Amino acid sequence: MTHPPSGNGREFFTTTTVGAALALLASPRTTPVERVPLADALGRTPAAPVTAAAALPGFARSTVDGFAVRAADTFGASEGLPAYLDVAGSVAMGRPAEVPVQPGAAVAVPTGGVLPDGADAVVMVEHTQVTMPGSVEVVRPAAPGDGTVRADEDVAAGAHIAPAGRPLRAQDLGMLAAAGVVEVSVHRRPRVGIVSTGDEVVPPETVRLTPGQVRDATAAALAGLVTGAGGEPVPLGIVGDDADALERVLRDALERCDVVVVSAGSSVGARDETAGVVARLGAPGILCHGLAVRPGKPTLLADCGGVPVIGLPGNPLSALVVFRLVGLPVVRRVGGTTVAPPEPTVRARLDRQVPSQTGRLDVVQARVTTSADGPVASPLFGASALLSVLTSADGWLVVPEEATGLPAGTAVDVTLYR
Amino acid sequence: MTHPPSGNGREFFTTTTVGAALALLASPRTTPVERVPLADALGRTPAAPVTAAAALPGFARSTVDGFAVRAADTFGASEGLPAYLDVAGSVAMGRPAEVPVQPGAAVAVPTGGVLPDGADAVVMVEHTQVTMPGSVEVVRPAAPGDGTVRADEDVAAGAHIAPAGRPLRAQDLGMLAAAGVVEVSVHRRPRVGIVSTGDEVVPPETVRLTPGQVRDATAAALAGLVTGAGGEPVPLGIVGDDADALERVLRDALERCDVVVVSAGSSVGARDETAGVVARLGAPGILCHGLAVRPGKPTLLADCGGVPVIGLPGNPLSALVVFRLVGLPVVRRVGGTTVAPPEPTVRARLDRQVPSQTGRLDVVQARVTTSADGPVASPLFGASALLSVLTSADGWLVVPEEATGLPAGTAVDVTLYR
Repeated sequence: MTHPPSGNGREFFTTTTVGAALALLASPRTTPVERVPLADALGRTPAAPVTAAAALPGFARSTVDGFAVRAADTFGASEGLPAYLDVAGSVAMGRPAEVPVQPGAAVAVPTGGVLPDGADAVVMVEHTQVTMPGSVEVVRPAAPGDGTVRADEDVAAGAHIAPAGRPLRAQDLGMLAAAGVVEVSVHRRPRVGIVSTGDEVVPPETVRLTPGQVRDATAAALAGLVTGAGGEPVPLGIVGDDADALERVLRDALERCDVVVVSAGSSVGARDETAGVVARLGAPGILCHGLAVRPGKPTLLADCGGVPVIGLPGNPLSALVVFRLVGLPVVRRVGGTTVAPPEPTVRARLDRQVPSQTGRLDVVQARVTTSADGPVASPLFGASALLSVLTSADGWLVVPEEATGLPAGTAVDVTLYR
Repeated sequence: MTHPPSGNGREFFTTTTVGAALALLASPRTTPVERVPLADALGRTPAAPVTAAAALPGFARSTVDGFAVRAADTFGASEGLPAYLDVAGSVAMGRPAEVPVQPGAAVAVPTGGVLPDGADAVVMVEHTQVTMPGSVEVVRPAAPGDGTVRADEDVAAGAHIAPAGRPLRAQDLGMLAAAGVVEVSVHRRPRVGIVSTGDEVVPPETVRLTPGQVRDATAAALAGLVTGAGGEPVPLGIVGDDADALERVLRDALERCDVVVVSAGSSVGARDETAGVVARLGAPGILCHGLAVRPGKPTLLADCGGVPVIGLPGNPLSALVVFRLVGLPVVRRVGGTTVAPPEPTVRARLDRQVPSQTGRLDVVQARVTTSADGPVASPLFGASALLSVLTSADGWLVVPEEATGLPAGTAVDVTLYR
C-alpha cells in the first residue's frame, strides 16, 4: 500500500509536552511478582522491602587481630607501665568463644572472631608485647567497645536491607547473602513487544536490498534499550502498511506483553493508519498523539486495556531518541522500578550555538571532548534521519521548552551513552 | 586452623599506589573471539572495527512527503507565481522508482521513498497545491538536494560502523542491523573465578549460624560487579583456612578462568597464607602486595601464567571497594574493553570534613541529597567492616594520595552506584 501525499496532507497534532506525556502513564499496571535466586537478582526490582530475619553479624565480633580484654584492666597502661594479663586461651575463626575473659585475663582473638563472654574490648596486637609464655603486656589503654562491633551493628533484626522499587545493586546482593536471603521476590521483567511497520522495511538478515528497501534498524536498537532498562524484548517482526495485518499483530501483542512499541511507517499516511489501528485496540485508547519534542513529534501514547502502547516515528534516530525519553520510563514503571539508576552525565560547554523553538523540547546529539578549560560539547546536526548521528554521538543534551536556543559557551549537562 | 596473633604480628607490605597497581596489569591476555548473534550483542566488545559492506541508505531517498522535482523547475516559484508541474506518477514505499522526472514534471514520493531518476530535490507537500488532477503547483523554490539524503549519506561502503574495544550500545545494534550485520565478532565474556576463604565463612543458604560464623556476602556481590562489567562470574565456593585445599581450588580455577579473585581470610595469618599459596601458582607470580588505599590495603595482585589473580581483603566492604577500583578495570581489559562505559557522577559539596593521610587514596562512601545550593555529599564513616555502609551509600568519592583530608564545603565528584 502506498501513501502518495495529498494536497491537504498537513499533519495536525495536539502536541503534548514530554512531562505531561509521562504523567499520562505515571501509574501503569506493574508486572506480577516472581521469586528469583540471588544469582539472577542483579538489576531486578524488589516488589516489597527485603528484611533481615536476624541481627547481623549476630554476635559481638572483633575487628582487629589482638586480645579480648576487660577494658577496665587496661586503664592507664603505657609502654613504661604495661598492664600484665594472663592469656586464658584463644578464639578460633568461625567457632564460638570457649573461654570467657575473667578479670586480669585476656583471650587471643583474630579479626572477625567472636568476642568472648566477659570481654568488652579487643586490644590490637600492635599495642601488646608477649614476653613470657601465658601472659601478655598491654601497652595502651582500651576503651569499652574498642576493636569490636556489636551483634546488631551491621543490621538489626527486622530491618530493611533492600528497598522496594530500586533495582538491586551488587552490594545489595552481598547484603542479602549475608542475611541468608537466597531467593528474592521481584517484579517479573516487563515484556516489551516490538513491532516494526512499513512496506520498505526488511529483516536485518536480508543480504541484498532492492532500491527503496531498508533493513529494520529500530527493532534491534529498541531491544537493546529495553534490555538495558531491565525489560525483556519480545520481537514481533515487521508488518507492511496493512491495517488489518497490523491490528492482528498488535492484538496478539497485547495478550502477551506488558508494553507494546510500534515504530510507525515514515509517511503521514502510514502514521495515520497506525493511529487508526491503535485507536481500535481497547479503552481508554490514545492518550496523546504528537509530542512537543524534536526529533519525535509524531509519537503516540495509548493505554489499551491496561497495556501501554507507544507509537514511535518511523525513522530510527527519532524513534530511539523519543523511546529513551518517554518509553524507558514507562518500561521501568511497569517493571515496578520507582527509583531509576542514575545516568552518567557531564557538564560541558557548547562549542557553538544550538537553535530551537520555544514550546518544544529539543534533543541534540553531541560529541564530548576535553579541553584545557574542561569538557566541550559539540552538537551533531546533520539530517535527523541518519542513524550515524546517533552512533557517532557520545551523549545528548536537551534544549528546554522555554528556551529559544542556547548560545555558544552555554554550560549544558550531556547525558552520556553507555 | 586458627591464627592467634603473635607478638610480632605487625604486617609489612610494600604499598603500591592504585595507579601503579593498575599499570602492572595494563596489558593482560585478552579472551578469544567468538561470533554472537545481534540479539545477544548488547554490551559485548567487538574485537575489531565492524565495517559496512555497502553504503547506507544505498539509494538517494526522500526525507519528506512531497514531490520529486528538478530543482531548476522551481526557481522563482512563489504563492503568487507557482511553478506548474505535471505529475508523472508516484513512488511506492519500499519499491524502485518506476517513473523518471522529466523537465517540467514531478513524481509524488513519500518520506523514505526512492528519489526517481532525473530528480534532484523533493518539495514537501506543505509547499504545494493540487488544484487540477494530474498537475501540482509548487509555491516555494527548492534547491538541489532539498528534502533528500544521498545514497551514502548515512554510511559509506567500507566505513567503520562500530569501533573495536568499546562495548556495543543500543544504537550500535541498530546500525549493525541497518548494515545487515546479524552476527558480530566479540571477545568472549571473561570468566572470573570467585573463591571465598575463611573458616568462619558459610554459604548464604545456611539458615542458622553458630556464633562465629558469617555467611559469604562477598562472592554474591563480586558476581554482581563482574556481571555488570561484562564478565561471567564462575562461583568456586568457600575454602577454609587450609593452604593445600586453597591451592587445589586455585590451580583448578587457573585452568578454567580468565581472571581469579580470592577474598582472603580476615586475619593476618590467613592473609599471609593466601599470599603464600598464590606465590606458588605460577610465574611471574605476585606483582604487588599492599595497596596505598583505604579500605583495601591488604590487596594482592598477581599474574600466574598469564591469568590475573586478585587477592582481596577478608571483610566484604573492603573487598568490594577495592575490587571496584582495581578488579573491574582488569576484568574489562581481559574482555578486550579499552573504552569503559562512563560512570554516573555528581559534583557535590561535602557537608563535613573527611580526614585522610598523605600518600594513601581514601575511598569514602557517601549519601547524596539535594539542597537549595545544589547536591550535598554526606560521608558515611562507621566501622569499615560493615556492609550496611555500602548498601546505604548512594556513591563514593576519593581523597587523592596527595591530600591530607578534605575540609567541609569542598566540591567533590561522587561516583554514583547503579
